[in-house]
Amino acid sequence: MDIVLAEGERLDDLQNGYKLIQQTKDFCYGIDAVLLSWFARVKKGEKALDLCTGSGVIPILLKAKTTGEEFWGLEIQKRSADTAKKSVALNHLEDCVHIVQGDVKEAAATFGAASFSVVTCNPPYMTGQHGLTNVLEAKTIARHEVLCTLEDVVSQSALLLQPRGRLYMVHRPFRLAEIMGVMMKYGLEPKRMQLVYPFVDREPNMVLIEALKGGKPRITVEKPLIVYDAPGQYSQQIHEIYGMDWQPGKGREKDAEQENA
Amino acid sequence: MDIVLAEGERLDDLQNGYKLIQQTKDFCYGIDAVLLSWFARVKKGEKALDLCTGSGVIPILLKAKTTGEEFWGLEIQKRSADTAKKSVALNHLEDCVHIVQGDVKEAAATFGAASFSVVTCNPPYMTGQHGLTNVLEAKTIARHEVLCTLEDVVSQSALLLQPRGRLYMVHRPFRLAEIMGVMMKYGLEPKRMQLVYPFVDREPNMVLIEALKGGKPRITVEKPLIVYDAPGQYSQQIHEIYGMDWQPGKGREKDAEQENA
Repeated sequence: MDIVLAEGERLDDLQNGYKLIQQTKDFCYGIDAVLLSWFARVKKGEKALDLCTGSGVIPILLKAKTTGEEFWGLEIQKRSADTAKKSVALNHLEDCVHIVQGDVKEAAATFGAASFSVVTCNPPYMTGQHGLTNVLEAKTIARHEVLCTLEDVVSQSALLLQPRGRLYMVHRPFRLAEIMGVMMKYGLEPKRMQLVYPFVDREPNMVLIEALKGGKPRITVEKPLIVYDAPGQYSQQIHEIYGMDWQPGKGREKDAEQENA
Repeated sequence: MDIVLAEGERLDDLQNGYKLIQQTKDFCYGIDAVLLSWFARVKKGEKALDLCTGSGVIPILLKAKTTGEEFWGLEIQKRSADTAKKSVALNHLEDCVHIVQGDVKEAAATFGAASFSVVTCNPPYMTGQHGLTNVLEAKTIARHEVLCTLEDVVSQSALLLQPRGRLYMVHRPFRLAEIMGVMMKYGLEPKRMQLVYPFVDREPNMVLIEALKGGKPRITVEKPLIVYDAPGQYSQQIHEIYGMDWQPGKGREKDAEQENA
């Protein structure tokens, strides 16, 4: 299918047979979304919903790697949601990937309680007050808890998930205790976690967490995920996640910006 | 001072000018206690209490490495407490290290509320039901939550600590969500955490956590602590913690046993 890119749009190759349109003015997906899609598990026949889906990269990546049946994405910003729908059409995925424009805080009302086996979310990382600029532009909304908080995402996920359903989230390690606390508050037991360290001798800058609705306490902490062997040189682990022909910076120039967010 | 070892006792050199008597039939300290003492911070003039102190290794290690004023240890088992007192005397530390035999569950009543700046604990890791043998011997008590639970340790620590006091704990990663949940329940905010990975490509088997009484949410996750570069070969990080002349297994043959506990 020939696609006409509008001004400010860019076409990225997802290296898995699919392509993604991104609004260069908006929040472009980064390594966070790729790692969350890698960490998340969607089983055969399952329905998965991605909250704060942005460009729709996570539903499309999950469609590519899993045998799940339906992949939904919810995005509050109209321009992002429209671009995500365009990417779905570009990849001929209209039968199994569905983008909805709407508010995370009303997600359970929108989709119905207990309607998903899996919820994923790459939410805004920063609390409302932290480093916030005055301008409520698209990138700010994607990064800061302006329109939805951690508690909104987790409480809505608890409603959206079926019993024994799983929530997968990527976040910043400095929020880890809060994340675990709010998950447990809403009956989502943290069951699996992996810290992402940029280098083997550096503090982690991402954490991946799986929580189980109605699970019993016991968490598996996975081996460390180390991103770089040396500056600009991805580790074997990252090469395996992205596919071996992946090069740092190629189409994902937001990585560094994200790490500093 | 000449010391006469009783049957079943062993003298270990702590490599810092101090020696420690251990009951070979009881739970001998392992890398856990060494790493907790390294992770914990006791400032000039502060009073620190070690719960479940066993052989008293942590108060003695903290005395060696910090400028704290008083170091207390609480141990419920008489034989362990007596041996710890003997080690204190052996090192002429009676003026600043004090061992008390007593129950963690009554620690706040024993010492008084808000009486310490720092509490440390290397508690029993396993829940009561998990892998428990019928015999309530000393090692079982040290390893399983038979006589005190995680919640006992944390709730008593919250009482024992002054406002802005710090709790330092070493535990197993599979209890991480529980630990954070119970800390926050009692007003101890997790502020610093480090995962200890036996090898760079293996799951962590220990977690070190610092919590602050009355702290605000925000946790620093430290760089990974990796124990071995290769089987039997400690990493540079561990050499620096133990001192460079340290060899695996030397006097601490319980490491492997501990890792499997």
